[in-house]
Amino acid sequence: MEFDSSYEIKEACGVFGIYDFEGNDTAADLCCGLNSLQHRGQESCGIAVSDTSGPKGNILSHKGMGLVSEVFKEDTLRSLHGNLGIGHVRYSTTGAAVVQNAQPLVLNYVKGTLALAHNGNLVNAENIRARLEQEGVLFHTTTDSEVIACCIARERIRSKSVEEAIKRTASVIQGAYGLVIASPRKLIGVRDPLGLKPLCLGKRGNAWIIASESCALSSIGADFVRDIKPGEILTITSSGLSSDFTLCQEKQAHCIFEYIYFARLDSTLDGINIYDARTRAGAALARSYPVEADMVCGVPESGIPAAKGYSEESGIPFGFAFYKNSYVGRTFIKPTQKERENSVRMKLSVLESAVKGKRLVLVDDSIVRGTTMANLIHMLKKAGAKSVHVRISSPPFLYPCYFGTDIPSNRQLIASSHSAEEICSIIGADSLGYLKISDLSYMTQNLPLCRACFDGQYPMDIG
Amino acid sequence: MEFDSSYEIKEACGVFGIYDFEGNDTAADLCCGLNSLQHRGQESCGIAVSDTSGPKGNILSHKGMGLVSEVFKEDTLRSLHGNLGIGHVRYSTTGAAVVQNAQPLVLNYVKGTLALAHNGNLVNAENIRARLEQEGVLFHTTTDSEVIACCIARERIRSKSVEEAIKRTASVIQGAYGLVIASPRKLIGVRDPLGLKPLCLGKRGNAWIIASESCALSSIGADFVRDIKPGEILTITSSGLSSDFTLCQEKQAHCIFEYIYFARLDSTLDGINIYDARTRAGAALARSYPVEADMVCGVPESGIPAAKGYSEESGIPFGFAFYKNSYVGRTFIKPTQKERENSVRMKLSVLESAVKGKRLVLVDDSIVRGTTMANLIHMLKKAGAKSVHVRISSPPFLYPCYFGTDIPSNRQLIASSHSAEEICSIIGADSLGYLKISDLSYMTQNLPLCRACFDGQYPMDIG
Amino acid sequence: MEFDSSYEIKEACGVFGIYDFEGNDTAADLCCGLNSLQHRGQESCGIAVSDTSGPKGNILSHKGMGLVSEVFKEDTLRSLHGNLGIGHVRYSTTGAAVVQNAQPLVLNYVKGTLALAHNGNLVNAENIRARLEQEGVLFHTTTDSEVIACCIARERIRSKSVEEAIKRTASVIQGAYGLVIASPRKLIGVRDPLGLKPLCLGKRGNAWIIASESCALSSIGADFVRDIKPGEILTITSSGLSSDFTLCQEKQAHCIFEYIYFARLDSTLDGINIYDARTRAGAALARSYPVEADMVCGVPESGIPAAKGYSEESGIPFGFAFYKNSYVGRTFIKPTQKERENSVRMKLSVLESAVKGKRLVLVDDSIVRGTTMANLIHMLKKAGAKSVHVRISSPPFLYPCYFGTDIPSNRQLIASSHSAEEICSIIGADSLGYLKISDLSYMTQNLPLCRACFDGQYPMDIG
Amino acid sequence: MEFDSSYEIKEACGVFGIYDFEGNDTAADLCCGLNSLQHRGQESCGIAVSDTSGPKGNILSHKGMGLVSEVFKEDTLRSLHGNLGIGHVRYSTTGAAVVQNAQPLVLNYVKGTLALAHNGNLVNAENIRARLEQEGVLFHTTTDSEVIACCIARERIRSKSVEEAIKRTASVIQGAYGLVIASPRKLIGVRDPLGLKPLCLGKRGNAWIIASESCALSSIGADFVRDIKPGEILTITSSGLSSDFTLCQEKQAHCIFEYIYFARLDSTLDGINIYDARTRAGAALARSYPVEADMVCGVPESGIPAAKGYSEESGIPFGFAFYKNSYVGRTFIKPTQKERENSVRMKLSVLESAVKGKRLVLVDDSIVRGTTMANLIHMLKKAGAKSVHVRISSPPFLYPCYFGTDIPSNRQLIASSHSAEEICSIIGADSLGYLKISDLSYMTQNLPLCRACFDGQYPMDIG
Repeated sequence: MEFDSSYEIKEACGVFGIYDFEGNDTAADLCCGLNSLQHRGQESCGIAVSDTSGPKGNILSHKGMGLVSEVFKEDTLRSLHGNLGIGHVRYSTTGAAVVQNAQPLVLNYVKGTLALAHNGNLVNAENIRARLEQEGVLFHTTTDSEVIACCIARERIRSKSVEEAIKRTASVIQGAYGLVIASPRKLIGVRDPLGLKPLCLGKRGNAWIIASESCALSSIGADFVRDIKPGEILTITSSGLSSDFTLCQEKQAHCIFEYIYFARLDSTLDGINIYDARTRAGAALARSYPVEADMVCGVPESGIPAAKGYSEESGIPFGFAFYKNSYVGRTFIKPTQKERENSVRMKLSVLESAVKGKRLVLVDDSIVRGTTMANLIHMLKKAGAKSVHVRISSPPFLYPCYFGTDIPSNRQLIASSHSAEEICSIIGADSLGYLKISDLSYMTQNLPLCRACFDGQYPMDIG
Repeated sequence: MEFDSSYEIKEACGVFGIYDFEGNDTAADLCCGLNSLQHRGQESCGIAVSDTSGPKGNILSHKGMGLVSEVFKEDTLRSLHGNLGIGHVRYSTTGAAVVQNAQPLVLNYVKGTLALAHNGNLVNAENIRARLEQEGVLFHTTTDSEVIACCIARERIRSKSVEEAIKRTASVIQGAYGLVIASPRKLIGVRDPLGLKPLCLGKRGNAWIIASESCALSSIGADFVRDIKPGEILTITSSGLSSDFTLCQEKQAHCIFEYIYFARLDSTLDGINIYDARTRAGAALARSYPVEADMVCGVPESGIPAAKGYSEESGIPFGFAFYKNSYVGRTFIKPTQKERENSVRMKLSVLESAVKGKRLVLVDDSIVRGTTMANLIHMLKKAGAKSVHVRISSPPFLYPCYFGTDIPSNRQLIASSHSAEEICSIIGADSLGYLKISDLSYMTQNLPLCRACFDGQYPMDIG
Repeated sequence: MEFDSSYEIKEACGVFGIYDFEGNDTAADLCCGLNSLQHRGQESCGIAVSDTSGPKGNILSHKGMGLVSEVFKEDTLRSLHGNLGIGHVRYSTTGAAVVQNAQPLVLNYVKGTLALAHNGNLVNAENIRARLEQEGVLFHTTTDSEVIACCIARERIRSKSVEEAIKRTASVIQGAYGLVIASPRKLIGVRDPLGLKPLCLGKRGNAWIIASESCALSSIGADFVRDIKPGEILTITSSGLSSDFTLCQEKQAHCIFEYIYFARLDSTLDGINIYDARTRAGAALARSYPVEADMVCGVPESGIPAAKGYSEESGIPFGFAFYKNSYVGRTFIKPTQKERENSVRMKLSVLESAVKGKRLVLVDDSIVRGTTMANLIHMLKKAGAKSVHVRISSPPFLYPCYFGTDIPSNRQLIASSHSAEEICSIIGADSLGYLKISDLSYMTQNLPLCRACFDGQYPMDIG
Repeated sequence: MEFDSSYEIKEACGVFGIYDFEGNDTAADLCCGLNSLQHRGQESCGIAVSDTSGPKGNILSHKGMGLVSEVFKEDTLRSLHGNLGIGHVRYSTTGAAVVQNAQPLVLNYVKGTLALAHNGNLVNAENIRARLEQEGVLFHTTTDSEVIACCIARERIRSKSVEEAIKRTASVIQGAYGLVIASPRKLIGVRDPLGLKPLCLGKRGNAWIIASESCALSSIGADFVRDIKPGEILTITSSGLSSDFTLCQEKQAHCIFEYIYFARLDSTLDGINIYDARTRAGAALARSYPVEADMVCGVPESGIPAAKGYSEESGIPFGFAFYKNSYVGRTFIKPTQKERENSVRMKLSVLESAVKGKRLVLVDDSIVRGTTMANLIHMLKKAGAKSVHVRISSPPFLYPCYFGTDIPSNRQLIASSHSAEEICSIIGADSLGYLKISDLSYMTQNLPLCRACFDGQYPMDIG
């Protein structure tokens, strides 16, 4: 899925927060954590920190376009003193790709300063925004996140604490969100009641961490403590941790795309290990679409784990068909379609001796337009592969997502206008099998899911 | 005054707006205009443009830290289509020196988009801000300008037009302001009722221009039409110009510092030509403090016009004592005070043959700490000047300004703790004379002035 | 080997040349080719092009520090017209890391202009340099490559052609070299007589290509034609190809490190496919050091192919133990050794569920200081691995390389002062096995090798 | 002259050298000195330093495109340790505007390292270059300076010392040169036998300085000691100063353009103070072309001193007609000629009240194409000037310069195809007078001059 950048599925950000009770600066940890969440957003990033021992609340921040390693240089890091901080990596789903939209938002309101980092999408943001504008509110950005921040600021007037204002806000906003919020002396994590977006808690010595994925905990040497509960508002102050579960509800709907595509292979979200889930998807494919073959291989990197699962289940040896060039595969001048296709060749090349004369099973996590897959099959056959049986470790996605997953529009999706048989023929495969919707439960071990992009059953009224 | 950057008097911005009825793009004109207002602010700049013929209101903008010529490259300019636009150059007086505080502010509110550029300082911004925060308003910046924008957005709800909302806002905000505001199809200029900040109207063919100073009109080949009246709200739409004078009042108080220091030599503000005013200040000095001398010279550039006036009045020949290096005189590594003093030497050097053996009158517009002047006198005497009589074309400033002039604090001002005699001795001059407060009227031809920085008589309650 | 940047083995550059007989610009192809050779040098890069149909010879060039994708932007590419060109990616082995040392060298001499790109190291460069300096030659760089260029320029005086001058030069210089040279109308490739450095010929339509590795041919859609023979001087002009084999000799000594580490997995050098060679190394390890285990895994990416070979030979399933973060794993502030160790954790994380409770074989291509391997073993055991048996797909390297491989000095190499048993204990492995020197022949299918870094038997007098 | 950048007269560089016997670092002084020579070249700059107490000769350098204040940041400066150093600012007269051509050249040769900075142009560089290429020399740059360096390196072989090699070289090269050369432990200054290019010696405490102009001495607080004699080779070592005068000759020919245009107003070259010389030129104009007028004014900055001289001689009051915008007057998008003319308006604006109703004498140092002057006259008349009498403080230049002054070619020079009367009419002046060639002697007090650009009498065979 990842080689055709125009049609890439875009992720809706990653968030990270840390409160070090011993008073150590957290800027370097924030950057390490964000670096390990970089797969969730490469457009912009930022951190905001507060020194909880300072005389009065003051939040310092730095944001910029680009990767964490590009935006944060040592000088900047050293100047951002504070033992409590939050950070954000962004891939725009709402709002344009400009630095003004970078997060965390740092805002001044009646009770001082507030920083907020948000992963997800609201379904009623436009309504709330229109209502607030009617009341004379000015918006500097076009993001859902500013709507949330604005609600909190307004609710704060009639609330005893920022937690209460957040709770009032959470009962108004609808959609998917994982939030980390820093008031100068509090670190707060909030997860939407359906648990659409992931959020977890970790600990390292005397420091508490909140992050979108568990991999961010390991990256700074912290241990996973538990997932934040859907609907939970977790507040960390110098007195310790306290949670409000008022908004928790029975119904849950974890986003299936985290397991298929978004989350990092080494993360465990809501009890399900991502590597295991993807391996199980491969195994399910092997049971649904068995084939006689000499080698199972994955499209790097997205198809590798499911290929491993297919191999284990089928007994067909796992192997490598492609070499992936790890240097930025920018294509140098590419005016024509033909040359654009070459860009695949700059990123992936066939390991000829490994595929020659073999019947192959080729696994990937999705097919978007089909052109990349057609290219790969062509390259494999040119290198001597006898046959290429394609297996896709997700069902065809047919419905739009309103919760932050920027799935390509119908026209771009080959599956929206062609049957599997037609696609098989278009891409030149010898056979093609998609993961069955019924196998998603096996993949995620019966976790309650939102799989609306596959079946159109949205877990809430999407207005 | 200008050579000791740590103690420079800082200006509160320049604004520029243009509406081309023929539909031509205005971005290049905006940059030319801002370039000619660059002396009013070098920290950041920006422009915002709207295409009035477009299907719906949309405002494009670009802002950045640095000079106009650094922030605007040809590519950027070409992408900013719009025949109506406003621009801003900034030197922070409120708010930190960060790009978030750069103007124009571009904001979304109930009626669409609004861009605003502001020169000046409010005296009740903090009160309004606190009140708005109590009502749940979030602020992204620490500027007065966001307070004004926020008021306009809120007043817009109960107003028939943006002009009405601006009028309601203008009746609430107190202080100094020259505003240019762009709604997608209107260009609006607003000047504070006392006329503290300048604002004028110009015309070039079928285009109308609003600018802080008349020099910005000439820079784009436009003709000066008239000054915007203190208290006037001037609205330019495709149907023409209309003005609301409701807030105009009898009392006026034009900022004396525009005439002494801020405005450009070739501007004419409220009927007073700046070059003439400064020349008259020199003449007044010659009458108040005559001296036998061979040559009158000014500290480049700020002292030149008054030196010319002193020369004309006294009959003592005008001449040049210094060469000014026009290349950025950054001092290269300067850990010690001694080396910091050398930085004057990198910017100014004595024309030895011109001063040797001469009795000099040396004119400048102000003395801040006195160290730069002491240096210059030392350099002149080392080069053979027989005597150096210092004349300052402004009175000593002793009171803080609340309207946007960032006068150094008392501790930095040598005049706040020393008499003229003491200063004369400290700087090593043979005599020293400051412009008399009573001569300010002569300088500005009886224009009603705010000269509170000299006499502490503020033209409004400063809270 | 690759995770401890201070002790990384550094490569001596990659070269690429192309001559398009149809007159098409080659700058974009040069960049694609260099991008696919980027693994051979990331410090600087450059290209030089000539338009063979131009009225007189003129060579345009662009060079810079950084990756190909950083140095070459579209504007630059479009301005570099020329259907004949050469390019270079560099990792310094001689000469400092400064842009002056970037290649291709473009030089003016008696016969006009010459561009030269060089991979390798001479053993007698210092002698030649000293001799030339005695004759009054000035050197602008500290590279061997300038020495070669200077020899060619001087030999050109008494030579009929640039080929002859190159041949005379080649008979003087000793060491390892793959050269591509562009005179305004000729593309010339030269390979050292022992074949230490690789160089091959490709073809795409009416264009001929010379490259360090075959992977660069595929990257631009060209077909592999043949390896340049050791000692061959291949000249491509508008009249076609011609070769001079005078310097060819019986003895050959291909650098073993290309097969172990340098070359890209999908290249085939001198008939040996790299992926196959590394797989065979793993198989040989399995035969030499069998062990009872549940899973064979490689340290990404360097250990993967040999792990695959070990798995196939042993029958122990192949699997993944680590996730590799593909975003630049810059460590954010790392003053202490402890924190430096964390940098491994930012790049690699354990797939816990995949290793828990398992007996593992962990394969990598080398051990330098041992600290990275110790870290990895610690991480695996912490994640629940029952045992970790380390297998290294190269012998311990004990002797310095004089041909362009920047092997860490003895003090840094743990193998130079410790036995395998000691190392096994230091890194905390359950067993440790290095590839036997005798298995190198099996790995490279009896290709004549230079393996002096393992056995100290240099293929020429190294002075 | 300076407002029409396409036709600006370009200067051939400035050089600066310093040897601090007390061992202090000189990088900051080098930058200060170069900053004060910035008017001689803004294209590129660089410094090279040596620590004379170091165990062996090593020269560190840094060069870049742009102004001194842009190229040298504090970090770079701090890393360049060395108490002996040279520096260079460049405006290309030979060689392209690329960083490779920036100076000082730092080169390795038989006796170690050498750094060289050169102001001027040789007339036999091409001959020497061709001869050297015939002997097999490679050139990396297209500058005369590399030719000089190469000669020194070759002569060094048969010379006892670098001074001797320089002397042998100086007897071969012909043309204009001011050279500062740093061998690791010697600072050497060389001036061409005719004295075409300036070079002087200064002293500050225990440090000796060599510079193109005396203003560079003052900028670092050093005192002027004496001019380097034409033909002198001055060597400064730890044992003190020694000079070789072998090449000195009777005939001298100082470049008139230094006095008219190049040198800084506060410099004194070969006994003639620049400010005084330009004032005398104005006085001569007043005697040659008297006129009834109300005010004499200069085109800023180039015409100011001569205007002062005209005023003093004529008794007509000196005044200011223009305000010069000190911010970079980049024109923002200027596709048409009409808009290009506007660029003058962005840099200069008329002080209306100062010129209205007046008869003006307008002085400048030269007329190139005439368009700028025509523009200025038009602006003055539009502002109400009754008449504008133009006086030019140099004769029309009619002959090319071969010594480093990049005088515009004939086609661009209005004087080459039009009489003074015609030009007067074209530019719309009421009268026009050029300085008479016979007055140049008065201007420079009978200093022997090269004034070939005015009379075609070259002081040497220009081949």
